[in-house]
Amino acid sequence: MKNVPEASPVETDAARMRMAIRNRGFDGVTFGLAPGFVQANLVVLPSDWAADFLRYCHANPEACPLLCVSEPGSPHLPALGDNIDIRTDVPRYRVFENGVEVAKADRLDGWWRDDLVTFALGCSFSFEEALLEAGLPIRHLELGSDQPVPCYITNVATQPAGRFEGPLVVTMRPFQPAQAIRAIQICSRFPKVHGAPIHFGDPGRIGIADFDRPEWGSSPVLYDGEVPVFWPCGVTPQVAIEKARPPYCITHEPGYMLITDVRNSALASF
Amino acid sequence: MKNVPEASPVETDAARMRMAIRNRGFDGVTFGLAPGFVQANLVVLPSDWAADFLRYCHANPEACPLLCVSEPGSPHLPALGDNIDIRTDVPRYRVFENGVEVAKADRLDGWWRDDLVTFALGCSFSFEEALLEAGLPIRHLELGSDQPVPCYITNVATQPAGRFEGPLVVTMRPFQPAQAIRAIQICSRFPKVHGAPIHFGDPGRIGIADFDRPEWGSSPVLYDGEVPVFWPCGVTPQVAIEKARPPYCITHEPGYMLITDVRNSALASF
Repeated sequence: MKNVPEASPVETDAARMRMAIRNRGFDGVTFGLAPGFVQANLVVLPSDWAADFLRYCHANPEACPLLCVSEPGSPHLPALGDNIDIRTDVPRYRVFENGVEVAKADRLDGWWRDDLVTFALGCSFSFEEALLEAGLPIRHLELGSDQPVPCYITNVATQPAGRFEGPLVVTMRPFQPAQAIRAIQICSRFPKVHGAPIHFGDPGRIGIADFDRPEWGSSPVLYDGEVPVFWPCGVTPQVAIEKARPPYCITHEPGYMLITDVRNSALASF
Repeated sequence: MKNVPEASPVETDAARMRMAIRNRGFDGVTFGLAPGFVQANLVVLPSDWAADFLRYCHANPEACPLLCVSEPGSPHLPALGDNIDIRTDVPRYRVFENGVEVAKADRLDGWWRDDLVTFALGCSFSFEEALLEAGLPIRHLELGSDQPVPCYITNVATQPAGRFEGPLVVTMRPFQPAQAIRAIQICSRFPKVHGAPIHFGDPGRIGIADFDRPEWGSSPVLYDGEVPVFWPCGVTPQVAIEKARPPYCITHEPGYMLITDVRNSALASF
């Protein structure tokens, strides 16, 4: 019997990439890596701030689509992958004290605490993959895989919860109207990764005063006949955290996500 | 045992209204009657034209969502109701010869033939009911229940099939963008009654030169911030039939529909 090797678990691209990141074999932007697997935004807060943030996510599920929450003090997220260690498996981290960034890090040795709670939130990479699979063009990706999506602060207020509140932040992708209709259908299937857009057309209607100058990301490029389509964005909770100024907080660096073992298709409704 | 009455079948509003129409107790527009039940567009053609029309419907399911087809010569549509008789159960009919209307009728006594095939097509009443239930305003209904929806010929060609071809005809309902997104989600659940819109925004993009003067229906009324949203329309097959000039054809009079025993909810996907 000794000659029969143990069955090794199926090693997916997701698990391989996560291990490469843990072992410092990769430290770049994760878009396009491990196609088909969910990538997650990361928010880590002290446990006495966790209940407020959990309620804030629950009250604003479009902007803060919560995939899972850790046990207090545990760096693991078994719902998203058997061997995830949140202290090592993200390429780049940001550490905040009282709402101010105090360090960037490529692992959390020295930054971890036993009272921390980790929140993993869905990200637009998942629905962008679904849009690309449906043959829809995504402008900022067409213009270069290093081009971040245009990102705006709106005058739409999120639902406050405890110490968290703030404006809704949106991403913008331009489409022809018929493409926008198809995009709405596709994204409606993915409520766990921001779901359907919240607006299209006139940016002024949601309080965007200068469309050509987004707060974050690259400048918008629209072709003839296209309309801007706006999705709730995972920067929304980051803005709420900055306003709330918790004494301690860790997030991923934007674009440097946690690669999970959950498949995008597993998040699809109907 | 003779004193025990037989159980009577459940009599629905749909069955009651259909019987009232059959018995000349009602001859009006059917919108809003028998809420919850599917109403159908009617096209009756000689059997040697039926195959072409069936293929035309199949090739253009958004504009011609086929609910059922009768056996040749049969005036019954058992898939839509046990006791439907197409010769008596529609309030008003139009009879065409060679593409020209030769008679209006309130029943088909004298007009029926043993070679006729009946097509029942889904109609926008079903998805309008779903939109109203979701709290979305429908402008032409707000302006008066007798106001027909604005209806336009586009420059989008339908897929030809046999002797049938022609432009796509669309209806227009104005919405705020967030309402339009919700309407797209709701209507996507109802592919058997035209499904999702095909366009929103600039009417010129689908060849509508004079938006203020629709080919049929009432003039458009848009409020501040609203965009026009365009759905495929059941007038599309009527235009194709007019162009094809079959020697004989019967339709319902627009607005005077066949009330079926099928519930709108039964047509909903997922």
